[in-house]
Amino acid sequence: MNFTERLRQSQENHNSLVCVGLDPDPLKLPRHLQGREDGVLRFCRGIIEATQEVACSYKLNLAFFEAMGDNGTRTLRDVLRSIPKDTITIADGKRGDIGNSSSMYARSIMTDLQFDSATVHPYMGLDSVEPFAKDPSRGVFVLALTSNPGAKDLQYLKVSGKPLYEHVVRKVKKWNTAGNYGLVVGATRPAQLKQIRALVPEMPLLIPGIGAQGGDVRKAVHYGCDNTGALALLNASRSILFASAGEDYADAARTAAHALRDEINRYRQERFG
Amino acid sequence: MNFTERLRQSQENHNSLVCVGLDPDPLKLPRHLQGREDGVLRFCRGIIEATQEVACSYKLNLAFFEAMGDNGTRTLRDVLRSIPKDTITIADGKRGDIGNSSSMYARSIMTDLQFDSATVHPYMGLDSVEPFAKDPSRGVFVLALTSNPGAKDLQYLKVSGKPLYEHVVRKVKKWNTAGNYGLVVGATRPAQLKQIRALVPEMPLLIPGIGAQGGDVRKAVHYGCDNTGALALLNASRSILFASAGEDYADAARTAAHALRDEINRYRQERFG
Repeated sequence: MNFTERLRQSQENHNSLVCVGLDPDPLKLPRHLQGREDGVLRFCRGIIEATQEVACSYKLNLAFFEAMGDNGTRTLRDVLRSIPKDTITIADGKRGDIGNSSSMYARSIMTDLQFDSATVHPYMGLDSVEPFAKDPSRGVFVLALTSNPGAKDLQYLKVSGKPLYEHVVRKVKKWNTAGNYGLVVGATRPAQLKQIRALVPEMPLLIPGIGAQGGDVRKAVHYGCDNTGALALLNASRSILFASAGEDYADAARTAAHALRDEINRYRQERFG
Repeated sequence: MNFTERLRQSQENHNSLVCVGLDPDPLKLPRHLQGREDGVLRFCRGIIEATQEVACSYKLNLAFFEAMGDNGTRTLRDVLRSIPKDTITIADGKRGDIGNSSSMYARSIMTDLQFDSATVHPYMGLDSVEPFAKDPSRGVFVLALTSNPGAKDLQYLKVSGKPLYEHVVRKVKKWNTAGNYGLVVGATRPAQLKQIRALVPEMPLLIPGIGAQGGDVRKAVHYGCDNTGALALLNASRSILFASAGEDYADAARTAAHALRDEINRYRQERFG
C-alpha cells in the first residue's frame, strides 16, 4: 500500500479527518506536569490516549521537542511509541537541504524514528525532497501555501502569471509517481485551497490553521477533500492540547477532538453525502 | 557590535575567510574512531584543534548530529564548547516555520545552544525568519541561491522578469535593519554570486559549494567579497574533514585548511590589494 492509500485507510478506520498536532509547549503544560523531567512525555501520552479514537494522524512538531535539549530525541521516541500502529505519524520539521544532508535528516526521521511521513520545504528543489520519499509507503508533505502571515512574502509572487505556490503544486504533482507525496496548504487560504485541490484531485493535503489560527473548518472540508470526502488532513494543535489548563486536560482534549471530528463529518456529509 | 561587525572581526583576527563545515558523517570517520560512542565528538575536536588558526567560522550541519539519535544534542553541545570564543559558529539547520514554532527552534539554537548564527529557509517569509534575528549580535543566513542541482526547480523561476532568488535577496536586504542578516549563495553559481554581491554590498555571504561540490574558489573570492575583500565566508566541509581517512586525519585537515586559506588570500590580494 502506498502512503496515500495508508492515509485513506486510517481515515476510514477512525471515520475521521482529524490530525492532532503535538506541539507540547513546556510553558503551557498543566501545572501538575510543569517542571517534571517527564512532563512533556506524560502530557503527550495523556493527549494521545484521550484522542486516539478520532485521530487518524498525529503531527509531531519537532521544534518543541528540540527545544527540550538533550532529552528531546528520547522523548520524541517515547511519544511515538505510544501512538497506535494504524495511525499515520507526521514529523513536522520542515527540513530541506542538499542531497547528502537531506539524506541524513531522512535517516533520522524515517529510518531511525520510523515516522510515516515528514514535512519539507520546497525551496531547494527535488534533490532536497526526494530522500524522504524513497519508500512509497512513507509520505512527504511539501509546503505549498502556508497558514502564516509571511506566506505573502514569497508564495504569492507571480511567475508567468501564476502564483509561486501553484508552481510548487505542479512540480510536486510531477514528482508524485509513487503515490506518496502530499502538500501543506493552510486553512487560512480557502480560495487557494479550492484551486489547489482542483490541480491535485488525488493527493493528500495537510491543512493546518484551523483552531487557534482561525481558519474556517467548513471551507477547509468542502475545498480540501478529494471527491470521496477524504485525503484532507485537518490539523488542530493548541485548541485540542490546551483545551483545559488543568488536571482535566486530557478529558478536555478528548471532548475538543471528538467535537472537531463530528463537526468535520457533518461538513463531509453535507458536501459528499 | 552587530553580527556583521563580529564576522568581520573574526575574519581579521584569523586573516582568513575559511568556514570549516562540520558534517561528521559517521560512515566516513577514520577507522580508529568508528563505532565509538564518542567517535564523532573526538573527530570534531581533532578537526577544530587542527583548523582553528585559519577558521574564522565553523558551520555545524545539524542533519549529521540529529542522525546520531539520542546522543546528538549532547554531542553538538560538546563540540560547540571546543570552538574558540572569537570564532563565529553557524547552526546549519535550514529551519523555517510559523512564528511560534520558529521561536522554539530559535530558542534551542540561539538561546540554549548559544550559536552565533543559523541558516533558514525563506519560503515562509518574515515571521518564520525573524525569531532568529532578535539579537543584533547574532546572525541569520537566509537561503538565496543554493549550490545543489534542485536550485533550478524554484530559485530561477522568473518573477516580474527577475529570478526568484533576486526577490529573496531584496526582501532580506529590507529586513536587515540591524546588520545581522546574511545570505547563502552557492559557489557553483559564480555569475549569480557576482550579481547578488552587487545588490548587497555590505552583507555577509555564506558560500558553500567549493571543494567536493566543485565551485571555483577564485571566482567565489572575486565575486563574493565586499569591496574590502571580506564578508564572504567560504565553506569547505568534506575536502577538509576527510582529507585523510586515517589516523592522521587532523594533520591532513590542518594542511587542507591552511592551503585553502592561503589560496583564498592570494585571490583576495590580487583583487582587493
